[in-house]
Amino acid sequence: MDVKQREITAEELSKDFKEISIAEFFEKNRHLLGYENPTKSLITIVKELVDNSLDACEEANILPNINVKVQQITEEKFKILVEDNGPGIVPEKVPLAFGKLLYGTKFHKLKQTRGTQGLGAHGAILYSQLTTGKPAKITTTTEKEIHKFELMIDVMKNEPNIISHEKEKNIEKWHGLKLEVECVGRYIEGKQSIPEYLKQTAILHPYAKIVYNGPNGKSTFERVTEQMPQKPKEIKPHPYGMQLGILRRFATTTKAKNMIGFLTKEFSRLGKRSAQEMCKLAKIPYKTKPKDLQHDEIERLHKAMQMVKLMSPPTNVLSPLGENLITEGLEKEVEAEHFVAISRPPTVYSGFPFVVEIGLAYGGKLPLDQSAQLMRFANKVPLIYHSKDCVTSEACIETDWRRYGFSQSSGQLPLGPLIILVHFASVWVPYTSEGKQAISAYPEIMKEVKLALQEAGRQLSIYIRRKQKSRESQLRKELFENYIAELAEDLSKLSNEDKEKIAKGLREIIKKGESSVTRKDTETSDEKS
Amino acid sequence: MDVKQREITAEELSKDFKEISIAEFFEKNRHLLGYENPTKSLITIVKELVDNSLDACEEANILPNINVKVQQITEEKFKILVEDNGPGIVPEKVPLAFGKLLYGTKFHKLKQTRGTQGLGAHGAILYSQLTTGKPAKITTTTEKEIHKFELMIDVMKNEPNIISHEKEKNIEKWHGLKLEVECVGRYIEGKQSIPEYLKQTAILHPYAKIVYNGPNGKSTFERVTEQMPQKPKEIKPHPYGMQLGILRRFATTTKAKNMIGFLTKEFSRLGKRSAQEMCKLAKIPYKTKPKDLQHDEIERLHKAMQMVKLMSPPTNVLSPLGENLITEGLEKEVEAEHFVAISRPPTVYSGFPFVVEIGLAYGGKLPLDQSAQLMRFANKVPLIYHSKDCVTSEACIETDWRRYGFSQSSGQLPLGPLIILVHFASVWVPYTSEGKQAISAYPEIMKEVKLALQEAGRQLSIYIRRKQKSRESQLRKELFENYIAELAEDLSKLSNEDKEKIAKGLREIIKKGESSVTRKDTETSDEKS
Repeated sequence: MDVKQREITAEELSKDFKEISIAEFFEKNRHLLGYENPTKSLITIVKELVDNSLDACEEANILPNINVKVQQITEEKFKILVEDNGPGIVPEKVPLAFGKLLYGTKFHKLKQTRGTQGLGAHGAILYSQLTTGKPAKITTTTEKEIHKFELMIDVMKNEPNIISHEKEKNIEKWHGLKLEVECVGRYIEGKQSIPEYLKQTAILHPYAKIVYNGPNGKSTFERVTEQMPQKPKEIKPHPYGMQLGILRRFATTTKAKNMIGFLTKEFSRLGKRSAQEMCKLAKIPYKTKPKDLQHDEIERLHKAMQMVKLMSPPTNVLSPLGENLITEGLEKEVEAEHFVAISRPPTVYSGFPFVVEIGLAYGGKLPLDQSAQLMRFANKVPLIYHSKDCVTSEACIETDWRRYGFSQSSGQLPLGPLIILVHFASVWVPYTSEGKQAISAYPEIMKEVKLALQEAGRQLSIYIRRKQKSRESQLRKELFENYIAELAEDLSKLSNEDKEKIAKGLREIIKKGESSVTRKDTETSDEKS
Repeated sequence: MDVKQREITAEELSKDFKEISIAEFFEKNRHLLGYENPTKSLITIVKELVDNSLDACEEANILPNINVKVQQITEEKFKILVEDNGPGIVPEKVPLAFGKLLYGTKFHKLKQTRGTQGLGAHGAILYSQLTTGKPAKITTTTEKEIHKFELMIDVMKNEPNIISHEKEKNIEKWHGLKLEVECVGRYIEGKQSIPEYLKQTAILHPYAKIVYNGPNGKSTFERVTEQMPQKPKEIKPHPYGMQLGILRRFATTTKAKNMIGFLTKEFSRLGKRSAQEMCKLAKIPYKTKPKDLQHDEIERLHKAMQMVKLMSPPTNVLSPLGENLITEGLEKEVEAEHFVAISRPPTVYSGFPFVVEIGLAYGGKLPLDQSAQLMRFANKVPLIYHSKDCVTSEACIETDWRRYGFSQSSGQLPLGPLIILVHFASVWVPYTSEGKQAISAYPEIMKEVKLALQEAGRQLSIYIRRKQKSRESQLRKELFENYIAELAEDLSKLSNEDKEKIAKGLREIIKKGESSVTRKDTETSDEKS
């Protein structure tokens, strides 16, 4: 007899097919959203909610006031509350905006924002109800009313489940959003922690006031300026590097009735003449309806798009911080003695515009005997994990900091009292993975970060050399002063001049030398000494 | 006049809310599915389709015959075809099974399979149509008919779009599935390539025949055994480590009418007595309907679940390869002189059973002067990328291979003619990230991998020492033989015996010594020399 098991048919197997809800998918794969362990989960919740609050305030042109509360309930359970003074969310939209994954405002826009997928708050609520079974509490406002919701996500259906909804009068005309969740977590301070994330956020948002109430007390990051950076704008995709499948979809969804309208309306930097040139190259009549394009026509159009010379994407759509805000941010949170800020002109990678900005903080109370601290930001959000994989770290390590007065071992950050802040702003940040913690090393990005670091390094080195020189001359002066009395006596004996008069003259010589060092701001002044 | 921009209201912002289709999400975030660059994308497609074919054949108890074709069409375009002799998919299910993301058979099961999410083929089709705009071609069978589909995914709706569907008679009674896609890619050979992936797959599937037709020619990985490993079984979740949110959902979806039925039916290793004990601890009457449980009751039940002593999850549900299949697989694909295989008994991490298996191939044509090659597998699937992050690499590096006769620098793999194969089989593989390329270093897993490596290392070292000893004695013998004539002459002069007779006697002494070395199989035989 054959002991082999009998073959099973496709019909028998087919009964196992089942639809999976996207909420179920992310509940099971919660590490994709940053919820792989209790410590990181707690940070992720604060980060996602604060990022949302900042996006909302800026979108509405409101100077952000943000309150963050993290309260330990039991050994492993925490209550987290984030409250902002933004525009809030209209009550009718609350159920879907928080109770249905992949429902949001940011996914379809090519625009510099902190969040991108519309998954941030959903992930927090999903993780919260998974670990504690409790609903999220959401408070939002209209002009006349305050609305309070208790909400859970029906995971199997990916639909909101409203537990309660109460209204009260908005007497004080408060506006904003308040979100509270409970979850299993672990609280730490130091590197890769909530306080560190908030501190770095405060540095890049000197126009925000952030109050933090943590398990170990309260701290306030004050607003030091009312100047907000220019608001980012939404752009159309640039034809270079466009995928064929996306082009095909654009052709079927456009409202344009002919090729020239389609090309000039749906793409960035594509004028009438370029559109005509593309159509000619692709052998497509101008009057063809985009919906009627055949596969081979789309293939030809796709090729032609890469061949016609076009301007780079517009770069004025970005919202860099600018050198002033970077300096103000660093000055308020870092006890250093000298600050440098560089904001590079915008440039382009794979069709996406981007800007690199650098801040350096030097000396003061920063530790002398440790490696420099690198603070990384993408669209103003601090990147806490996966530092080694990040283009910013690579560029820092490959920069020769010995030129700027630091010691540095190969493959390491420079040694000394230094904070290096790198900010990457773009309509599309090429994260190395879903965790959004490190930026890919595209050659164009690497080059820009390095150029920016070099520019900042050179500026800092001027300060460092001047300081060194003034310290050296101070030492020489002190040394000389110690000998003035003795020297004056010797000279007085030789010249029969009055001892005191000679000493006074010598002191004046020192004074002159000193001021000439202070006045002269050059780096190479060896001839003076 | 105030130059500040006016505040924007929630009402104005709310019009931007929009639903995002899951297909759109993964098209934009295709790196989550392994499509971050043309080289990796090509490997990912082959890998996903071959994994599906192997799963289907094993599920149906069919010895797998798999054909893989990779054909270069233009400089950057490739046609990929994977064909198996599995059960196929019933034609009615084809549209959804390939044209709708998050629709599959594996997601909801706790069972050792290669795929888990039902996203593999979908990702391949999504990437293919994104880069070439072409539909996928799918051929499947019923007993009487062969069905051919051309299919695309409607990305905005996450729905299948059937371009064509033809039927013909299944005269030759062929059964199986054939999937063909075109995509932009880059073809390489060597490490991290399609041939290497297929070779490693062949090693762990000596019962499969895999034919590969690549851009550089054809190669066949023959079947060397008809013995298939025991089929894995589906299990219920174990109460230990269960999340509160999941418990809550189970309580609302169960068909059981009371607590005892609920607990004994939905969980693994939970008998009537343990169920009663849990209810008592949680102060819930046995007869309570699970659907009626209040939040505080679920919280108490969740706590009680972790307190009652239960047996570990069943481990006979796994499908390890076993030592024979590992050896057979290595022998057929690796030109080494000696093989060792270890299959550890199953054990448990976070409530999930798992098995670690090791194969070592030593000597022969393996390179003498390079680091050992590590081949990593999870549920029989080769892991190609992110080797450094993987528990298997860490365990290999932390194992002291000098004990087993290899030289090894700290933090490195051993040096020498060695292949180390590590296979991790579990109902739930804790991948470090979505890429499914590295296994997390859970302490229980780390411990098991190390124990398995040590066991294998000890076995291998017996062979290595014996070989070394026999080589040494061979050298001694040769040395001695060179002097026999001379020695015999000297002895003949001293003893007046015949020179030839003395030489013959000496040769016999050598022979005896030699056989005594060959017979004795111990490691510690220093006293003999």
